[in-house]
Amino acid sequence: MGVIHRRSGESPAFHWEGVALERYESAAPVTKQVLIGPREGAAHFAVRYFEIAPGAASALDTHAHDHGVVVLRGRGVVRLGDERHAIGEGDVIYVAPGELHQFENPGPDPLGFLCVIPPKR
Amino acid sequence: MGVIHRRSGESPAFHWEGVALERYESAAPVTKQVLIGPREGAAHFAVRYFEIAPGAASALDTHAHDHGVVVLRGRGVVRLGDERHAIGEGDVIYVAPGELHQFENPGPDPLGFLCVIPPKR
Repeated sequence: MGVIHRRSGESPAFHWEGVALERYESAAPVTKQVLIGPREGAAHFAVRYFEIAPGAASALDTHAHDHGVVVLRGRGVVRLGDERHAIGEGDVIYVAPGELHQFENPGPDPLGFLCVIPPKR
Repeated sequence: MGVIHRRSGESPAFHWEGVALERYESAAPVTKQVLIGPREGAAHFAVRYFEIAPGAASALDTHAHDHGVVVLRGRGVVRLGDERHAIGEGDVIYVAPGELHQFENPGPDPLGFLCVIPPKR
């Protein structure tokens, strides 16, 4: 059966009814919400929403799975390999398998983005 | 290597640099843009953007793969099985495998949404 999560607020972070707000990294003000995943019955992909507070950044990360990212709010910087790119609302980023990546929010507004992943293998 | 597509406009439809605007159904003003897919190197999922003009609707459809949908602009109605639900910007819809579904835009503004799919099998 299908599932609908309505976006129910935008302060201090975008959030959705029926979806838990998780702290992604204990040392940094980055939050994660799994919008579509195993709980909704999705076996083939997951859609998560991350929000990075002004002045914060995601971990510098690399792993075998790829990411599909769509920025929903704010502006920031994405590191892909050795390059850094300014990004903003509406921009789409594909992070390839094994590619070093990091999302930074120099501020002043929250940086929020959807991030699609294949299932963990 | 990663890929960035910048959203470059919003009229008459949201569109992205380097992404083709496709007419999805010849009989209806529905457009499709593949933001992340095989062309970007993504083998495990695809992220597409659909925009439905006021007064139009997607085809009534059912298939073995599921959909992850996030509304980016406008308001409309989603049919899931025998039920119809009002949806709007920010809302998240999971369409389960085999579930009958259709997106309708009664207007007056464009209805635009991201739609994630697993690879065709």
